[in-house]
Amino acid sequence: MEPMDYSGFFSEDVGSFFRSPVREIFKRVDLGSIYSFAGGYPSADTFPLDRMAPLAARVVEKYGAKALQYGGTQGVPELRQVLSDRYGVPLENIQVTTSSQQGIDVCTRILADPGDVVLTACPTYLGALQSFRSYRAEVCSFPLRPAFAQACREAVRSLRAGGRKVAFLYLIPDFQNPSGETLSLEERREIVAMAREEGILIVEDSPYRELRYEGEDIPSLYSLAPERVLHLGSFSKIFAPGLRLGWIFGPPALLDAIYVCKQSLDLCPPVFDQYLAAEFMGSGALDANLRKTVALYRGKRDLMLSLLEANMPAGVRWTHPEGGLFLWLTLPEGFDSVAFYETALSAGVAYVAGSFFGAGANTMRLNFSFMTEDRIRKGLLLLSDLIRQAI
Amino acid sequence: MEPMDYSGFFSEDVGSFFRSPVREIFKRVDLGSIYSFAGGYPSADTFPLDRMAPLAARVVEKYGAKALQYGGTQGVPELRQVLSDRYGVPLENIQVTTSSQQGIDVCTRILADPGDVVLTACPTYLGALQSFRSYRAEVCSFPLRPAFAQACREAVRSLRAGGRKVAFLYLIPDFQNPSGETLSLEERREIVAMAREEGILIVEDSPYRELRYEGEDIPSLYSLAPERVLHLGSFSKIFAPGLRLGWIFGPPALLDAIYVCKQSLDLCPPVFDQYLAAEFMGSGALDANLRKTVALYRGKRDLMLSLLEANMPAGVRWTHPEGGLFLWLTLPEGFDSVAFYETALSAGVAYVAGSFFGAGANTMRLNFSFMTEDRIRKGLLLLSDLIRQAI
Repeated sequence: MEPMDYSGFFSEDVGSFFRSPVREIFKRVDLGSIYSFAGGYPSADTFPLDRMAPLAARVVEKYGAKALQYGGTQGVPELRQVLSDRYGVPLENIQVTTSSQQGIDVCTRILADPGDVVLTACPTYLGALQSFRSYRAEVCSFPLRPAFAQACREAVRSLRAGGRKVAFLYLIPDFQNPSGETLSLEERREIVAMAREEGILIVEDSPYRELRYEGEDIPSLYSLAPERVLHLGSFSKIFAPGLRLGWIFGPPALLDAIYVCKQSLDLCPPVFDQYLAAEFMGSGALDANLRKTVALYRGKRDLMLSLLEANMPAGVRWTHPEGGLFLWLTLPEGFDSVAFYETALSAGVAYVAGSFFGAGANTMRLNFSFMTEDRIRKGLLLLSDLIRQAI
Repeated sequence: MEPMDYSGFFSEDVGSFFRSPVREIFKRVDLGSIYSFAGGYPSADTFPLDRMAPLAARVVEKYGAKALQYGGTQGVPELRQVLSDRYGVPLENIQVTTSSQQGIDVCTRILADPGDVVLTACPTYLGALQSFRSYRAEVCSFPLRPAFAQACREAVRSLRAGGRKVAFLYLIPDFQNPSGETLSLEERREIVAMAREEGILIVEDSPYRELRYEGEDIPSLYSLAPERVLHLGSFSKIFAPGLRLGWIFGPPALLDAIYVCKQSLDLCPPVFDQYLAAEFMGSGALDANLRKTVALYRGKRDLMLSLLEANMPAGVRWTHPEGGLFLWLTLPEGFDSVAFYETALSAGVAYVAGSFFGAGANTMRLNFSFMTEDRIRKGLLLLSDLIRQAI
């Protein structure tokens, strides 16, 4: 039989899908065999591996068959209660999601039509760009500094004057992926004031918020404007990404549309995983694990910063993240981090080129959570040498 | 502050979302307190509760940290291999999904634009109708008997003559939800021939296929036409719905679009659950559990059929399902099963009205998997009495 041509079957959205270059790298490279500053993987040392069987036993004993049955679309009541207690958010403002990536996707689905505009930072999270573009939304992005709120305000007015709809503003205020930057309270207030004055919604993506290594917590956008923020949380960095669980805090009227949408997306979040997470969080084990995780990552961040200081050639700059998993390197003008990628990979070290996040060719994202300190040291010395030779 | 009006923020899709009436019933009624023939819940007696902690221990011992880490978007290699071995499908034709509901949803997403037409049976699965309509696809449905393939062929031609695109044909060939009907081999061949001649794709939803209580397996549509069928499988009825795991078998060119879409939907299926399923299936425990499940459900089906025979008033007819979870009641013309619902619920018994699946008001779906035999007996006597009084 002739091979079939499927191109005529696809919906219009498919033409706007684009593959994650990060995931493509993972498909062809064994991460164990190279020094990988790519990816946003937590360290395996933070996973409570030895607790999983006891947790499973506890869930079965305490919840019985309902831990393996279909669950409610909003999430199981026990997990929603634990989230409510921990974050001080009423139950009616909580929807559990099958990963915070699903949170991004479903917010885009209910708010953006093809041609609508999503405002965001430049650079920003790649998986969010994939969602926005998959629905044929357009992305309009600005650097977070020096005047993000003002740039958004002008964009909203100019877009509306041209008859365009602004779907929402997407931001990662804490230890941003990919730059590692954190918005100050004053910057958050400006952004919220702008959103209120211009009448736009905000999707606040907050997977790293609890991974702070210095300084004080800054109020979330959601706490500043609960009436117009959809706040996305995740268990991936505080428990384990292998569970695929996140949550959305937001106004009930918006959560209701997400609830109905989620019925057709996947009926309900993974139920057994939700009970594992409820037990892990509710028992205090999550907090103990999180303290260990923060101490581990703080050490890795400090090591990264001191290695960069000691080894990077002049003309290379980097951010000083107060938390999270990433820092951001800016190389001299003219440096092409996409072209340099093959050189680095052949030598045994990986990063993600900044252009994948919508930034300039002379930038790259470095993850510091995944590797051990010993491998971070060897990998960063290698990367510094390669960069020195290249510039 | 004035309550905000969010209606202006929603995308056009939201206007086509509709809530599952089944899930709405579950929200207001405690299923434990009534006789419920509603829902499509497996029996809790089929869940391997006492194996969950040993399975978790085994997964942690065998796979270590990767069981809690992010996984590949296609599914973890170990689960894909077990699926390949069990079903004789090459790895390149397998995509793991976060539930088979996600399978339906993502197939619709990559194949249907607003206004495109999905062909299906009448009645058909409610969750599928929710997905189709959420993307503003139109649904064109026909009874499975006597001449489904011919009705589809005429519809395709007439729709295309009117400038419309047919997205795909959606079917549940084995023990259909909601009717319990199974397509014969001859009917399957006619449908496949029609699809080939008219150039349409088929989405074959197959969550009940392994729950056969009599007769021989009939080849799947996928086995008859692998080049144009996306075949959806599920762990929900053979292991546990609380895991939210399914799979798609299909042509690599279609799976590739699904793969890229899934990156932005949720990055990857639940990883810990995938390893639990891989161990459960790969070790032979799934087959042992399935034998027990089939014996249990066969007994319940036989009980239902004999109770219906003994108790239902004249003028009521029902299907004789060879497998699955449901049978379908047809009441005399003029009976309104939606209006009757409140009467039944007040008396303590629940079903799903046939009109929710696109069928006539004088029909209802009865589930026989969820309740114990004792409760099936009491519930069906009650329902029979209520129906006798009503007609």
